[in-house]
Amino acid sequence: MYSIMLELQELEKLYDQVKDQGLKDFKKFLEFKSISSDLDHIKDVKACANWLADYLQKRGLHIDMWDTDGHPVIFATHLKAGPDKPTLLLYHHYDVQPVVPLEEWENPPFKPEIHDGQIYARGAQDNKGQCFYTILAITSILEKTGSLPVNLKILIEGEEEIGSPSLPAWLEKKRDEVKADYLAIVDVGMKNRTTPAVTLGARGIVTMDVIIDGTNSDLHSGTHGGIAFNPLHALVQVLGKLRDENGVVQVPGFYDNITELTEEEKKVVSLSFDEQDYHETFGQKPTGGERHISPGKRLGLRPTLEINGLNGGFTGMGFKTVIPARATAKLSCRLVPDQNPKKVGQSIADFIQSHAPDGIDINVHVHPGTGIALRTNVNSKIVKAFSQAYQEVFDIPAEYILEGGSIPISATLSEMCGGDTVFVGLGLADDQIHAPNEHFGVRRFKKGFLSIGRALSILSQL
Amino acid sequence: MYSIMLELQELEKLYDQVKDQGLKDFKKFLEFKSISSDLDHIKDVKACANWLADYLQKRGLHIDMWDTDGHPVIFATHLKAGPDKPTLLLYHHYDVQPVVPLEEWENPPFKPEIHDGQIYARGAQDNKGQCFYTILAITSILEKTGSLPVNLKILIEGEEEIGSPSLPAWLEKKRDEVKADYLAIVDVGMKNRTTPAVTLGARGIVTMDVIIDGTNSDLHSGTHGGIAFNPLHALVQVLGKLRDENGVVQVPGFYDNITELTEEEKKVVSLSFDEQDYHETFGQKPTGGERHISPGKRLGLRPTLEINGLNGGFTGMGFKTVIPARATAKLSCRLVPDQNPKKVGQSIADFIQSHAPDGIDINVHVHPGTGIALRTNVNSKIVKAFSQAYQEVFDIPAEYILEGGSIPISATLSEMCGGDTVFVGLGLADDQIHAPNEHFGVRRFKKGFLSIGRALSILSQL
Repeated sequence: MYSIMLELQELEKLYDQVKDQGLKDFKKFLEFKSISSDLDHIKDVKACANWLADYLQKRGLHIDMWDTDGHPVIFATHLKAGPDKPTLLLYHHYDVQPVVPLEEWENPPFKPEIHDGQIYARGAQDNKGQCFYTILAITSILEKTGSLPVNLKILIEGEEEIGSPSLPAWLEKKRDEVKADYLAIVDVGMKNRTTPAVTLGARGIVTMDVIIDGTNSDLHSGTHGGIAFNPLHALVQVLGKLRDENGVVQVPGFYDNITELTEEEKKVVSLSFDEQDYHETFGQKPTGGERHISPGKRLGLRPTLEINGLNGGFTGMGFKTVIPARATAKLSCRLVPDQNPKKVGQSIADFIQSHAPDGIDINVHVHPGTGIALRTNVNSKIVKAFSQAYQEVFDIPAEYILEGGSIPISATLSEMCGGDTVFVGLGLADDQIHAPNEHFGVRRFKKGFLSIGRALSILSQL
Repeated sequence: MYSIMLELQELEKLYDQVKDQGLKDFKKFLEFKSISSDLDHIKDVKACANWLADYLQKRGLHIDMWDTDGHPVIFATHLKAGPDKPTLLLYHHYDVQPVVPLEEWENPPFKPEIHDGQIYARGAQDNKGQCFYTILAITSILEKTGSLPVNLKILIEGEEEIGSPSLPAWLEKKRDEVKADYLAIVDVGMKNRTTPAVTLGARGIVTMDVIIDGTNSDLHSGTHGGIAFNPLHALVQVLGKLRDENGVVQVPGFYDNITELTEEEKKVVSLSFDEQDYHETFGQKPTGGERHISPGKRLGLRPTLEINGLNGGFTGMGFKTVIPARATAKLSCRLVPDQNPKKVGQSIADFIQSHAPDGIDINVHVHPGTGIALRTNVNSKIVKAFSQAYQEVFDIPAEYILEGGSIPISATLSEMCGGDTVFVGLGLADDQIHAPNEHFGVRRFKKGFLSIGRALSILSQL
């Protein structure tokens, strides 16, 4: 057993050799209608998984198909770099979002077309594009050199777009197999078109429903107004107490156990935020959340509590003078290290219930599917490997950023894997993922190929 | 010209003479499918109006049909009691509510059936029943005696169940014609099965929509949580300030200009309220509104501010972590004399807007269709006439009550009429009006006939 280190120039040559067939194969991958949410496409999803597994197997990876209750998971491995080399787990997904409204697509979403340097198709970026430049790099290196610089495990699931319902149970069964020194989730993006980024963490999440029941049926607000308990008033009063006027969450303990950045991280992690650009793009200043903290810091380093839905009474056109029997709300928190999602959820439920009007029970259902926040130290070797790879490929230092969103499966996967976790990828905000005319740049596809090749090589030497 | 006074015994004899044909004619009236809200029944509504007008004309009343933009109004008069006799305007409606769900009716809603002492049909009580005992009494007296005790105007509209959209404009045109000393709106009910009631007033109403716009599109609460302005938080915070924990409305001036009951009225107006019964019926104690004031007083004498609808974000099954672009609410107030609905509406709009977060405009649209509260002094002759009539017919003193609801057209009609306004009728809470199997008691139909006859006679002598 031996490992191979490929320099950037060698990888560029390699890409030139494989790109024609590689782009053809990529197009074939994009043609599968692997819409995981659509029951009419179950066969297409399966065909896509089979094609991809076959592709990897033919090129020398060992394949284990996990036949979950939902769509299959491809678990591909190549563990021949030797015991002194690290093991890296890569995460991707081959399923895609639906394609409605179809009439807004300029070419059919499953007939990929390349023009103006972009490849247009559903999944062109998310995540078939990022998946395929990764496996094209790996299989090309393997074919060229007969080996890989690190021990590699690749998990490619088929249910990311529907919330990965089947994967956690399988990860429990496959605990030993997914163990690795590092986990790279290749499903995120760059800071902007010219600046690559390594995402050191994502926020955790806990969600809940709030239900206030009043009378046993809707009542008329004429004959009952001022008499009947109105759950809508109770709802706005209790939810109005969750934050103060400055956006500071009032739930006791909400900001406990927050891990700040180290002094070293503070120097390198980018918390910059263009408020003017935000205002122009979204039509409002970034005034949500804690007003005394800068938006960039709020997004990366602070937890938040948001109301995601309010409902009750008459909400149609016109007017109906009703006092409804029920009022409901949906709340979610984004969490940071080292908050415990279940504990935070429970403290919010306790807070809400402690503010219930006399004689009224407020039902708060904290959903079991939580996710912890992830953050990897900037000194981790996996961070260094991608950071250096991106710097070489883009000829500009990669920024270190923090993701405000949550990738729920990443927390589970990271825990099972046991290694430092990083989020990487070359997505851009205007790639139209989840929308008509999704696309990905052919040059970015190449840079992705090069970055993966370099990252594996660098990691093997650190 | 002369006027006639009929005693109860004489009216009972008269009823016995006319009841067979009268109930037949009542059934005929009930057979018209005069559903005002249903475009498929425009012809049925018109046929009903024509039949009723013809019925009244044949029996000696002068008919003026108002061909409004909507369904016609019948304006029937008999003004021959002499100038020394008062003029009474009676209000009814011949239109009815829809009949869905049809399968829950035991007999077809437009095929009236009498059993167990009740007549079952759509409109049996609301308002064809109360309308028909009134006109049967009037036309029978006129036929029997050749005259009526008072000068009479009867306005029977065809759009009450859809909010009387066409009537106000016609009342403007007919100002002089609808002038009267008294107005009796025969469309309400009794305290309970054995105790008649005269309703001295109804609350006024003002309604409004509240709209808070945030960003120019819905955003994801992961990548925007803690950054983006969330209009749902602003909505609950501002609406949460409208009432304090004890249900007291916090809008400055909200309780100004409230006319209390006179000492005399306090002695006779019933503000009793069965809290135990309320709890058992509706599943909650009557804890809405101002907690330091008794429910009966709150309902009759206090204004209220209710949230009737809340909407924004994701409200379906499951969860969607959205920060919505818009949050909305619907509010209404029930008002008491002598609050000005427009002024109250504006003060609530001002209060809400003054609590808007920095940089956010809250749009409050106060709807133009307001209604003032009505209350007639217990010493008014029209109150005495109905009160005495009910006492004779039911052999128990009538209670004086206040209606918590609003009958929007009544405020306009009362203003145009210029006379003291009273709400009367023999409805019961379990007559199933607006529901399947609506019914009205045959004995109550008779008592209605007797009450109208006696009330007119008594009024002519006061």
